[in-house]
Amino acid sequence: MERNYRLVLSCPDRVGIVSMVSNFISSHGGSITDANQHSDPLSGYFFMRVEIDAQSLPFSLEKLREAFTPIASSFEMEWHISDSSQPKKVVLMASRQSHCLADLLYRYHSKELFCEIPCVISNHEDLRSMVEWHGIPYHCVPVDPANKQAHFDRVDELINEHDADTVVLARYMQILPERVCERYQHRIINIHHSFLPSFVGARPYHQAYDRGVKLIGATCHYVTPDLDAGPIIDQEVTRVSHRSLPDDMVRLGRDVEKLALARGLRWHLEDRVLVHGNKTVVFD
Amino acid sequence: MERNYRLVLSCPDRVGIVSMVSNFISSHGGSITDANQHSDPLSGYFFMRVEIDAQSLPFSLEKLREAFTPIASSFEMEWHISDSSQPKKVVLMASRQSHCLADLLYRYHSKELFCEIPCVISNHEDLRSMVEWHGIPYHCVPVDPANKQAHFDRVDELINEHDADTVVLARYMQILPERVCERYQHRIINIHHSFLPSFVGARPYHQAYDRGVKLIGATCHYVTPDLDAGPIIDQEVTRVSHRSLPDDMVRLGRDVEKLALARGLRWHLEDRVLVHGNKTVVFD
Amino acid sequence: MERNYRLVLSCPDRVGIVSMVSNFISSHGGSITDANQHSDPLSGYFFMRVEIDAQSLPFSLEKLREAFTPIASSFEMEWHISDSSQPKKVVLMASRQSHCLADLLYRYHSKELFCEIPCVISNHEDLRSMVEWHGIPYHCVPVDPANKQAHFDRVDELINEHDADTVVLARYMQILPERVCERYQHRIINIHHSFLPSFVGARPYHQAYDRGVKLIGATCHYVTPDLDAGPIIDQEVTRVSHRSLPDDMVRLGRDVEKLALARGLRWHLEDRVLVHGNKTVVFD
Amino acid sequence: MERNYRLVLSCPDRVGIVSMVSNFISSHGGSITDANQHSDPLSGYFFMRVEIDAQSLPFSLEKLREAFTPIASSFEMEWHISDSSQPKKVVLMASRQSHCLADLLYRYHSKELFCEIPCVISNHEDLRSMVEWHGIPYHCVPVDPANKQAHFDRVDELINEHDADTVVLARYMQILPERVCERYQHRIINIHHSFLPSFVGARPYHQAYDRGVKLIGATCHYVTPDLDAGPIIDQEVTRVSHRSLPDDMVRLGRDVEKLALARGLRWHLEDRVLVHGNKTVVFD
Repeated sequence: MERNYRLVLSCPDRVGIVSMVSNFISSHGGSITDANQHSDPLSGYFFMRVEIDAQSLPFSLEKLREAFTPIASSFEMEWHISDSSQPKKVVLMASRQSHCLADLLYRYHSKELFCEIPCVISNHEDLRSMVEWHGIPYHCVPVDPANKQAHFDRVDELINEHDADTVVLARYMQILPERVCERYQHRIINIHHSFLPSFVGARPYHQAYDRGVKLIGATCHYVTPDLDAGPIIDQEVTRVSHRSLPDDMVRLGRDVEKLALARGLRWHLEDRVLVHGNKTVVFD
Repeated sequence: MERNYRLVLSCPDRVGIVSMVSNFISSHGGSITDANQHSDPLSGYFFMRVEIDAQSLPFSLEKLREAFTPIASSFEMEWHISDSSQPKKVVLMASRQSHCLADLLYRYHSKELFCEIPCVISNHEDLRSMVEWHGIPYHCVPVDPANKQAHFDRVDELINEHDADTVVLARYMQILPERVCERYQHRIINIHHSFLPSFVGARPYHQAYDRGVKLIGATCHYVTPDLDAGPIIDQEVTRVSHRSLPDDMVRLGRDVEKLALARGLRWHLEDRVLVHGNKTVVFD
Repeated sequence: MERNYRLVLSCPDRVGIVSMVSNFISSHGGSITDANQHSDPLSGYFFMRVEIDAQSLPFSLEKLREAFTPIASSFEMEWHISDSSQPKKVVLMASRQSHCLADLLYRYHSKELFCEIPCVISNHEDLRSMVEWHGIPYHCVPVDPANKQAHFDRVDELINEHDADTVVLARYMQILPERVCERYQHRIINIHHSFLPSFVGARPYHQAYDRGVKLIGATCHYVTPDLDAGPIIDQEVTRVSHRSLPDDMVRLGRDVEKLALARGLRWHLEDRVLVHGNKTVVFD
Repeated sequence: MERNYRLVLSCPDRVGIVSMVSNFISSHGGSITDANQHSDPLSGYFFMRVEIDAQSLPFSLEKLREAFTPIASSFEMEWHISDSSQPKKVVLMASRQSHCLADLLYRYHSKELFCEIPCVISNHEDLRSMVEWHGIPYHCVPVDPANKQAHFDRVDELINEHDADTVVLARYMQILPERVCERYQHRIINIHHSFLPSFVGARPYHQAYDRGVKLIGATCHYVTPDLDAGPIIDQEVTRVSHRSLPDDMVRLGRDVEKLALARGLRWHLEDRVLVHGNKTVVFD
């Protein structure tokens, strides 16, 4: 894999941003290998993602950040630059259901997802063997219904210890405390097993069955303190019929959950997802 | 088109229904050209639709109904038999937006939809020329915001006068009074421009934009007094992105509205939709 | 899981088949839990699949077959009856690419697919550890390009030894000899990585890239001696764009391959796929 | 609609193109309202489309072209600039089947498609009334099987007379002579009723039925002298089953044909389709 720097930014829209950014890059001999931009006329915001061939620049990532800072300031940008050769550290969390976890582990193992997985955290022992086969440490942190706080404290500790860039709730089924959501803002990815905003909360396939919908879905989104209401990264649906009992919906839904989560995580790992307000720009 | 009788029934499930029905038909020499059945283990209900070659039976539709009545009674069936050569009378209602109406008129005109359209009713004059080009009477019944009742009374009258079997709300945008919904139970079809149950009510595409969903949809359903909550016949979705402004969603949504409504109406016209509780069985 | 008998049949269409079959079942007190039929007016053939609650019948599977034989003969049926509680024996074959194999193993392991997997056969060692973790024997049978026959003989032997009902080519990449295809007619399932009949043969994603298609696909089909030309069970597609390089198509294609193969195999295991000529009837 | 200039270009890829183009624009005070670029690493080509707010530039379209010419030359660009307020002139051609023509006329009439339609040309009279209701001249140019040349000469003449920018074959069903294809290179759009490259040539739905595919499709592409082999702009598919007879496929196919053609034409009208070799870059 060639090594790129990824410059990702958003700022109030005005004339000359692209020109300023591309000039900055070309003035240092930088070669742009991919670029996307988006102007949102309703919010008046501008979004950009540029991949620069790292070999074409005469300085390090640190120097690049330093050199870009004045431009970023003058345009009031929110921005970051990452190095494509540095895998993000992703802590996976799951409960008893294994399909999303198994799918992500497979994609990691087969190098489809470029990241490190320092550990998997679960509130049950069920998935230990599968995780350890992949050579990944497994931490079982049970939930004591009488004292959920102990669970969350230990989870928090583990995430910190492993220096996670990103946390993925691969059907974790617990609601993270507000302070964790806020500390890892736009870095916790959840897969909800419905086509949000339909069927927020528990047992969405059963809700879908009761309503008699003809398509079911899954939603990959960033977690916010507000349940199932965070910025949506991706959604996927599949057709069901009157013959689909709740168990069939659960089964059919697993495939769309896996797809939506895997795509969303891939885009996140490649710095393709920009959040503005409660919405995402996805440069896929 | 060959002429068939369509026997459509639902009843509490028990042993021997298929056998009894198929015996009844074959004992009269009837030839089954299509058959579908469905047992719902959760509701304990059984659903069936049979097409019988009309020429293969020695009696008229009326006699067929008479002959079948004892069987229907013994199984406590809700049932009806229709003649495929008798087009249903479908009154179309629209407001100013023409896409669903134009689409249905085209499918009617090109004989893709087999029905009669005795008239189109609208609260605006805008679509008169288009409708009349198809040789269909157009009734403009304006809505006086101070006295909506007059509008609904006249609408009701027109539907009755034209002896409608079915009413289609092709983006009609008014909420029909409860008594009309009830009189034409499971015979008024609406197209709602969202993937229900998301975004009930007004301006669903704007709601979708605000929520930042990645797919938008449309829902074809039977109208009940409870707004946008009736039995769903069909749904369709299409992908949107951060580049999709509300106007783009409106535009992209038109195509899924047309598809969901046309499919739902077709199935309804062919007696393929059975309603049980607030859900449908669709033998497509 | 409740135990059912699955009666699957096809025969020249004529009046009274459904009646005869359903009478036969109900006359023995049999309770039909699911039934599908299809009349193909162009071929003049009739297809039927019935699930009967095994507990509702007074005799064994063997006696049921015996009792049904006269009816089957009088209608010139091709037919079989299987017992839903008896898992089919499925031999999986793969080469180096693991995605389809891993997907099927996961679905087997999580009990989504009801079958036995007596062994996995591959021409490489790469996937041994993954397979053995699932507790399944792994046979590596290398291919000597100078003597492919030795490979196929050993493969044939293994399939026979393990008494396979079904063989799945999960990206096996070798072309089975004609006599194997014929011996296991309609029992060898392949996943081809294109939307057949486009891009038969080698490197279909590269062919797709060269043609500039906007959707790529995968096809699950029964293997016949004619390469990639057997009866199609299922197909799936996904969107690509000018940004999709061949490697991206390979990656995106993996997900549609997995879906099409898993669905096709599931239907096969549940005796939902009937072959007539070079086409399938799928009672999904 | 705000007025934009659309600069569309392709050239061999090298460092500094984006910078040069965006500098050129911003140095004249130009405001970029939308921009897309694509580098194809396999062909080594670069593609770009920029929308510039016409009001933000101090000169006319002509002067803009003049000013940009030196840059274009130095990068060996193929390029053009169009004015979004100038509708393209689109000649529609059809035969007897009306669905694609009716769909395009509706989208034109409802202002979803921004273009002029100076005339419709057909080899039959069937669609005259429908076209003339839209206020568009209708030319019936019959095909004499003994002298097809006369037809094509007259068609050619009409296209020239009406000064067409673009010709759309909305199920025209005749094969245009090579010299017409070449004169209007990348300006004649066809809708083929299959998922190309499957089922080239006549009666593709019947070919699809015979092969037993589980999805059917439609392909919108630029016409080249090589039948059904030109650059693909868009494709769409829909699911079919064993119950789908050829007539059902024809019916279901109509909806995907309409969608693929309407999308492809829209992108073409907005200068979003760039052709390189036999493939397209679509900046949708």
